[in-house]
Amino acid sequence: MTQSIRDSIYDEIASIRLIDPHTHIDPHAPASSTLADILGYHYYTELAHSAGMPKDQIEEPGIGPRELVKRLALNLQPIENTANYRWLIELCRKFFGFQHDRINASNWESLYDSAESKMARADWSQMVLDQSNVESVFLTNDFDDDLEGFDSNTYIPCLRTDDLVFHLAKSSVQERLVGCSGIELDGSLASLRSSLHQRFEHFVGRGARACAISIPPTFVPTPVSDGRAASALTQVLKQGELADVAHRDALSRRVFWTLAELCDEFGLPFDLMIGVNRGVYPGGVYQGQDLYDSRVSLTQYRELFNAFPNVKFPVSVLASVTNQELVSHAWIFPNVITNGHWWYSNTPSFIARDAMARLEAVPQNKQIAYYSDAYKLEFVWPKFDMYRNVLADLLAEHFVGRCGWNEERAVELGRRILRDNVDEIFPARD
Amino acid sequence: MTQSIRDSIYDEIASIRLIDPHTHIDPHAPASSTLADILGYHYYTELAHSAGMPKDQIEEPGIGPRELVKRLALNLQPIENTANYRWLIELCRKFFGFQHDRINASNWESLYDSAESKMARADWSQMVLDQSNVESVFLTNDFDDDLEGFDSNTYIPCLRTDDLVFHLAKSSVQERLVGCSGIELDGSLASLRSSLHQRFEHFVGRGARACAISIPPTFVPTPVSDGRAASALTQVLKQGELADVAHRDALSRRVFWTLAELCDEFGLPFDLMIGVNRGVYPGGVYQGQDLYDSRVSLTQYRELFNAFPNVKFPVSVLASVTNQELVSHAWIFPNVITNGHWWYSNTPSFIARDAMARLEAVPQNKQIAYYSDAYKLEFVWPKFDMYRNVLADLLAEHFVGRCGWNEERAVELGRRILRDNVDEIFPARD
Amino acid sequence: MTQSIRDSIYDEIASIRLIDPHTHIDPHAPASSTLADILGYHYYTELAHSAGMPKDQIEEPGIGPRELVKRLALNLQPIENTANYRWLIELCRKFFGFQHDRINASNWESLYDSAESKMARADWSQMVLDQSNVESVFLTNDFDDDLEGFDSNTYIPCLRTDDLVFHLAKSSVQERLVGCSGIELDGSLASLRSSLHQRFEHFVGRGARACAISIPPTFVPTPVSDGRAASALTQVLKQGELADVAHRDALSRRVFWTLAELCDEFGLPFDLMIGVNRGVYPGGVYQGQDLYDSRVSLTQYRELFNAFPNVKFPVSVLASVTNQELVSHAWIFPNVITNGHWWYSNTPSFIARDAMARLEAVPQNKQIAYYSDAYKLEFVWPKFDMYRNVLADLLAEHFVGRCGWNEERAVELGRRILRDNVDEIFPARD
Ligand SMILES: [Zn+2]
Ligand SMILES: [Zn+2]
Ligand SMILES: [Zn+2]
Repeated sequence: MTQSIRDSIYDEIASIRLIDPHTHIDPHAPASSTLADILGYHYYTELAHSAGMPKDQIEEPGIGPRELVKRLALNLQPIENTANYRWLIELCRKFFGFQHDRINASNWESLYDSAESKMARADWSQMVLDQSNVESVFLTNDFDDDLEGFDSNTYIPCLRTDDLVFHLAKSSVQERLVGCSGIELDGSLASLRSSLHQRFEHFVGRGARACAISIPPTFVPTPVSDGRAASALTQVLKQGELADVAHRDALSRRVFWTLAELCDEFGLPFDLMIGVNRGVYPGGVYQGQDLYDSRVSLTQYRELFNAFPNVKFPVSVLASVTNQELVSHAWIFPNVITNGHWWYSNTPSFIARDAMARLEAVPQNKQIAYYSDAYKLEFVWPKFDMYRNVLADLLAEHFVGRCGWNEERAVELGRRILRDNVDEIFPARD
Repeated sequence: MTQSIRDSIYDEIASIRLIDPHTHIDPHAPASSTLADILGYHYYTELAHSAGMPKDQIEEPGIGPRELVKRLALNLQPIENTANYRWLIELCRKFFGFQHDRINASNWESLYDSAESKMARADWSQMVLDQSNVESVFLTNDFDDDLEGFDSNTYIPCLRTDDLVFHLAKSSVQERLVGCSGIELDGSLASLRSSLHQRFEHFVGRGARACAISIPPTFVPTPVSDGRAASALTQVLKQGELADVAHRDALSRRVFWTLAELCDEFGLPFDLMIGVNRGVYPGGVYQGQDLYDSRVSLTQYRELFNAFPNVKFPVSVLASVTNQELVSHAWIFPNVITNGHWWYSNTPSFIARDAMARLEAVPQNKQIAYYSDAYKLEFVWPKFDMYRNVLADLLAEHFVGRCGWNEERAVELGRRILRDNVDEIFPARD
Repeated sequence: MTQSIRDSIYDEIASIRLIDPHTHIDPHAPASSTLADILGYHYYTELAHSAGMPKDQIEEPGIGPRELVKRLALNLQPIENTANYRWLIELCRKFFGFQHDRINASNWESLYDSAESKMARADWSQMVLDQSNVESVFLTNDFDDDLEGFDSNTYIPCLRTDDLVFHLAKSSVQERLVGCSGIELDGSLASLRSSLHQRFEHFVGRGARACAISIPPTFVPTPVSDGRAASALTQVLKQGELADVAHRDALSRRVFWTLAELCDEFGLPFDLMIGVNRGVYPGGVYQGQDLYDSRVSLTQYRELFNAFPNVKFPVSVLASVTNQELVSHAWIFPNVITNGHWWYSNTPSFIARDAMARLEAVPQNKQIAYYSDAYKLEFVWPKFDMYRNVLADLLAEHFVGRCGWNEERAVELGRRILRDNVDEIFPARD
């Protein structure tokens, strides 16, 4: 394999117009308005904090965006080696005309100003999408989102269900569910199911193409009998978060199972993002407090995968050690799909090893290469580009270099997992 | 390191005549008779099914071999990226004069015909062995196999003991044991041991060179006292599969321990294949239903390894994450031997990382490089060749490139683990 | 990236004068006096034993150094492939003028003699340090070490606390603690704390720069209430090792927590070496009996990391599978620091993957690249050099090749983790 073949493959796959199948973009403010939206991303705040910057300097109440950017810019030196820092530099160079390879005291302010003036353009979001070669992005919508006021062809709704499964004991969540569904939780399982059903109708009616959830490593989804579920629901409605953990857990499993049934009924894929422990470091910055226990197994999901053969489960795993189990499950279960490189596994060396294991063992029509998980549009491009650089290496080294494929065939595989599978696994309704 | 050194190392190790230390070859029909024997291998049926082909199209009763090949051939496109597909193409090119790099509607039938005519030759099995540069293969024989009617120098018996350890509660297994050993299970531990002893005599007398078993991740082999074992045996003989799980488990551990004692007595290595969960996806195709829980540890075997210092334990692990524990155990336990790259870890990227970890840490006389696990002889060559390609890379990059070895020394290491260790660890009797 | 850039980076980082932040050097006999001190290192005895050499040949009472070297030298051939063997050859070539690439019957004796004559020089230790480009090394001192009779600028004390945490039930340990601290253990928690406090004063007063402990995978450090701790202490003082395991465990956790409090008070980093199971193979050679269970999680330490935000915890993990958890914890916890490549993970392929994961995700000021763990000074250089070779590859391939850094910037990162962080994380007192 020569470098030129690798670069040529990279160029080809970089020209593929993307749909980003998982983001946290706010469709009402999809792009950034100042550099503080960029540098305020948890990756920079948590890494700067980890490297020594006190949390109260980062999260001081009332601090303005320029001051926040200044403070962070002066604390980035220790994280220059990270992949996350590289996203930052690359997006500043691509979108804001930044010419340097480091952000520091000498240049942060001019960068701030040039970014601000670009972001002020009315068509900035669309410019970012176009420069990023991105057609549309999936959102992460709360279950009570009205999904109004944006173009759902570009910003594709996705029903996020963490609150329903894991926080239904909170009265605030119950009230939101009643409020948005218009269905009273009268204590019956039927009312609970009806309210969830109503939410699926709402979301699918407004173009949703997936249901999604993030799950702690201890969760084992299994069906809960009507009797057990009814008593759990009764206790949780009565006692809220004070209800016994056994009741809350039974209700979680019941709601989860009901969601899977509704995915089946409505033909929605169910994105499972497996492994996160929330709030492990409560003293950390906003969104910089979660970790995981890598001792999780997809065997916990065997009953689910068997019970719903017609539901597609795009699965993300938080720890790279779980990737082989994911590969093996996608290898034999028709409804298990490998999905992206998530969070702590979203750095080049983990991507390289996890992606290669998938490419050599999982049918190519069951691999969703990547999603950005971005909160602001500017991050879609550098994250996908990190992935594409790894993918170009793997396609060139393994498929061209070792398997003797020609370039065209390697690029076809890239296109299949980067774009075609998103179209086919999450089909748009008409 | 230059490519030419790597290729030269590859050529040298490819010229080593092999003994394949673990297969599922049927010595009465070692090679294929039609392409359906090739494409019917579970790797192709399970991957085609996973990619979308309904099970009932694959396993339709009464379907002929040509029709099965046609159906599968038209469903292979989604799995072209897999290592398993590459085995298929490479063996078709080597053995059947196939000229293409894909099997599809335009060429499957001529491939079928040319394969069929080759396979019809009376000496086809020997031709495959010769073209594969393979001297002999180990079998996987049921404990009640009469081991008659084949040349045990080429097809080397191996006593497979899963049924004895994990299924002795089934009356069918008890009957088979009584029938083949001629020893009545009268409820005493002595009768059980005698029947097992008789089986070892039978196998060793007919040239067996190993005892083997595959083991679920939950199994912890520990000795069971005579009293406990006797009551477990009594209950299992009385109640069969309805016996309490504690009794069945105690009996499993007792039988396992007795097998280890008999390996010690008869000087047979005991192949442990650790980690498989059977029937995880019961809706899957034949042999495409098994997975694993990667949360297994070799620490579960510490008592066994300590109790039998004179028994050699070639150990295979199903999940790559267990490979480091295997390396470390083989590093200090004289009787623990690394054995091959099993099943879901038998793809190039896992082989590369697992093999490298062994090569740099385990004494070279304690590594069995590879086995094919093949059901038909045609697969021995492409599987070993996948391994040899990885090994040539590692020998060239690490030992020549980084450690400064010359080619000859690197090839010697390759020969040691590919062939010499098989001869020494599983010695032939005279 | 060209080979010349990689080699140039290697040369630059090899010129950095080192402080080795963890060894088991005896400051009263830091270097070897015969080759038996080299070949008697547990790596060679355990690997030779694993490869087939009986333990009683290695540990025969009264055997002289020349005879031991002879026996081992004749049994090294099977371990020539190991990284450990490579350390041996490289140090013999560097320090003793050895010209060959194998030690065998034809050359061991002349090597023995030339080594012996070199080692006989009065300034041998300092020569080894100088030739190794090493300024000083951290020790591993028993809690009752008087720390007298050596230069603590070169040989830096470190308080090792395994005995206190895990073996305080032994009367010998209690007696040692009373003896060295001069404080009677009168059954009160206050007396226990006072004796530990006295040890910290002693160590810090003599230049200690770290507290350290190795920990089994099952240990979960959590605070123990005064009441519970008092009853545990009472029982352990009364019954010693016969005390109930629940009492001994509670006392272990109490002592551990107290040590963390004292690290906080005295400003000492607390090195955690997580994962070792002692005595798994009791029939093994000296120091060749320990293994691990890779099913350990840093989530077991969450309460500790949260409770002591001002204590720096340089963390080593025994199994590579735990490295990603370590990376992720160091990514968000300001007080978690990645520390070296320990024992069974201290071979090139594990170092490469674990180091790369750290380099791309952990702030550069929170990575301690490496320590030698050496028992004799001669091993510091070959072990660090193995690491430096891997690091040079990673810096050249990733940071120069993929990220576009120049050489100088890559070398700066190397210097930061190899040397600067040791100075900053373990500051010397004046
Ligand atoms: Zn997300
Ligand atoms: Zn097998
Ligand atoms: Zn140590």
